[in-house]
Amino acid sequence: MIEIGLIGFGNVGQDIYRILNENGSLISKRIGRPLIIKRIAVRSPEKYSNLITDPSLLTTDVNDILNDPNISIVVEVIGGEIPALDYITTALTNKKHVVTANKEVISKHKKHFFKMAHTNGVDICFEAAVGGGIPIIRALKVGFAANKIKAFYGIINGTTNYILTKIKDEKKEFNTVLKQAQDLGFAELDPTMDISGLDAAYKCSILAAVAFKLDSQVNEIVHKGIESITLKDLNYATELGYAIRLLAQGKQLESNEFELQVCPSLIPLNHPLASVHNEFNAVYVVGDQVGEAMLMGKGAGGSPTASAIISDIIDISFGISQQTSSRNLETNFQDGQIKPLNKTMSQYYLRINVKNEPGVLEQVSLQFAEQSISIEKIIQKESNTNIAEIVIITNTIEHQNFIEVETALSNLKQCNKVESSIRLYKTL
Amino acid sequence: MIEIGLIGFGNVGQDIYRILNENGSLISKRIGRPLIIKRIAVRSPEKYSNLITDPSLLTTDVNDILNDPNISIVVEVIGGEIPALDYITTALTNKKHVVTANKEVISKHKKHFFKMAHTNGVDICFEAAVGGGIPIIRALKVGFAANKIKAFYGIINGTTNYILTKIKDEKKEFNTVLKQAQDLGFAELDPTMDISGLDAAYKCSILAAVAFKLDSQVNEIVHKGIESITLKDLNYATELGYAIRLLAQGKQLESNEFELQVCPSLIPLNHPLASVHNEFNAVYVVGDQVGEAMLMGKGAGGSPTASAIISDIIDISFGISQQTSSRNLETNFQDGQIKPLNKTMSQYYLRINVKNEPGVLEQVSLQFAEQSISIEKIIQKESNTNIAEIVIITNTIEHQNFIEVETALSNLKQCNKVESSIRLYKTL
Repeated sequence: MIEIGLIGFGNVGQDIYRILNENGSLISKRIGRPLIIKRIAVRSPEKYSNLITDPSLLTTDVNDILNDPNISIVVEVIGGEIPALDYITTALTNKKHVVTANKEVISKHKKHFFKMAHTNGVDICFEAAVGGGIPIIRALKVGFAANKIKAFYGIINGTTNYILTKIKDEKKEFNTVLKQAQDLGFAELDPTMDISGLDAAYKCSILAAVAFKLDSQVNEIVHKGIESITLKDLNYATELGYAIRLLAQGKQLESNEFELQVCPSLIPLNHPLASVHNEFNAVYVVGDQVGEAMLMGKGAGGSPTASAIISDIIDISFGISQQTSSRNLETNFQDGQIKPLNKTMSQYYLRINVKNEPGVLEQVSLQFAEQSISIEKIIQKESNTNIAEIVIITNTIEHQNFIEVETALSNLKQCNKVESSIRLYKTL
Repeated sequence: MIEIGLIGFGNVGQDIYRILNENGSLISKRIGRPLIIKRIAVRSPEKYSNLITDPSLLTTDVNDILNDPNISIVVEVIGGEIPALDYITTALTNKKHVVTANKEVISKHKKHFFKMAHTNGVDICFEAAVGGGIPIIRALKVGFAANKIKAFYGIINGTTNYILTKIKDEKKEFNTVLKQAQDLGFAELDPTMDISGLDAAYKCSILAAVAFKLDSQVNEIVHKGIESITLKDLNYATELGYAIRLLAQGKQLESNEFELQVCPSLIPLNHPLASVHNEFNAVYVVGDQVGEAMLMGKGAGGSPTASAIISDIIDISFGISQQTSSRNLETNFQDGQIKPLNKTMSQYYLRINVKNEPGVLEQVSLQFAEQSISIEKIIQKESNTNIAEIVIITNTIEHQNFIEVETALSNLKQCNKVESSIRLYKTL
């Protein structure tokens, strides 16, 4: 059994609790033993007692966690520098692994923490501190570990990316969109830290530590915010072939010289970073061997952040249980059925080569109607030859149903050939 | 010291050798001890003896690796089912960790391998088998391990993605582009496995194993290739707001029912998967907690593949050395200087509010000329008021130089205000 102690029980803490309940059996199977929350330290237990099954887990004394010999992993989700610094320091001194989502305390004290963890033979993990649910820290530490990282470019503040997207899409100005984002919970009541680029600068210094092994502090990172970006600028940028994003960038130049900065940047529209919309985050990495790579996902919110924190807990648990094979393998395959293609649902694109004669469109439409298939979009261009082309996108139908209409079309005397049929992507 | 044995010395094997030379000290520091290639098994040593410093590493007898008690990690890079199946089986039986890039043998024998590895207390890692340098396997195994994975959508064949991109961009037909891709080394001489979707189907079954713990075989995965996709279809798709990509998809439906298939798919142009061009790969994952996430990078080529293989070797080495703290931390920060902002280089976007009067554009241009700054793009729109706007993109200049021109513009009597200045993204 692996016992964890939770310091703080706000949104993220509550989501950790919920996920360990919902997906607990999956997670325990993954690490080969049960994982339980032993204690939760909060200031006002009465506020949370109705949120959990066993209110006796709650304590106002953080030492109930820091000094409990059975707790091997301390999860800090209170945020801010003080008192997190003390709690983490004590946890490491007491040889407990630490998992935190706290960008500020990691950015400021990373060198101190890494050294303490090393001395005490434990881990300090902070996947959730940059890019929320995106496994960018682990990618840099392991996935790209064969590389010298040459540069990273991160959209690592969801609030500003949401605002920039909305100014452009909804043709509104900064202040209107900021208000809207605050109402929807995508921006804080005091949004200064996000808007000014300071939040991204903290995360930039953490990325620089992991990518370059460079110990930088935010005051060394020039950061500029998005306050002055207007709808006009976003429109001019589009006209010139660019999107505007708040970009945190780090480059390793020659001879141990680095560039670190956070500022709004024009990014070519066909660059993958330009397709990162709304509250999404992404980090684009250039390694000397792997070349260019990008990780994208939700950069904030209780659930993605908790997902990242639990991934750290799982990673540490692999180490605790020392079962090599549980880290890398699954011996427990599940029983599952693969649905036959004919029963799967999709929209379909069809391109049909037909005779260019009156009534052909009606005949084609009729085939769809007879199979009760709706046509969502249709293109028929004028043609000067005796051949015409019809392109159709159907509504969502069973593949079997599609095969039937395709056959019916092929048998139609006005139809020369069904030239193409392609399924449409649809997310869940 | 960690000693590895390499079976096969083609492109990927040679890149592993090269990277371990080039970035060896970085990698050894990362895992806390030296990592060396002890033996390399090949059929014809004479072909390779001039490629390596010490030709005595070469052997024609694979048992020199499989039976060497000092070799703890066996790296298989010969590809194909036979004899890789035998080599991997023997390595696992002899309690050696295995790293492979072999999608076919993993797809077919994963259940057997995982069980054997578990029994023998070793790892079998295959990051390089799907998506080349993209750390998608590790993301699914650890990064998203708190999640029930609901679906994945992968562009996991670089050859077909390259061909689809080029048909569209260069307005050529399939056969012409295929020939071109073969000449450039982006397609095999016999491209059937890629073009038909079979390669993607192997990878799809591996993703399904890791994401869903489902043991599927390629013959259960309907796969359709891109042979019939024409320039016409790609153009119609654009007109309708879509890109076409060869997509491998897996969905977990209700009650242990799954959808697995590989087929060309229409993807909305504003979807991140639609921005995956040329030989790039990407996997879009939907988790119940993390939401939507995407990992993108180079899916093939010796260097990205070797990068992934070495990441597996490093991950296994963490386990062998049992030094918790070396996995997760860096105590060795490097000395580095952060370049002052004024000395950094960039292109700049400027929006200037000017008096609408004759000669203003000349005066503005003059300020740039005096600082020896070239103007790359300029927009000035007609205006009916006494105010006009000029938008300028400069060439690449030092920030100091930019500040000087910005000040000069501000002091210009025809200039009301420099409204915006934004840096342009530039990759290394």
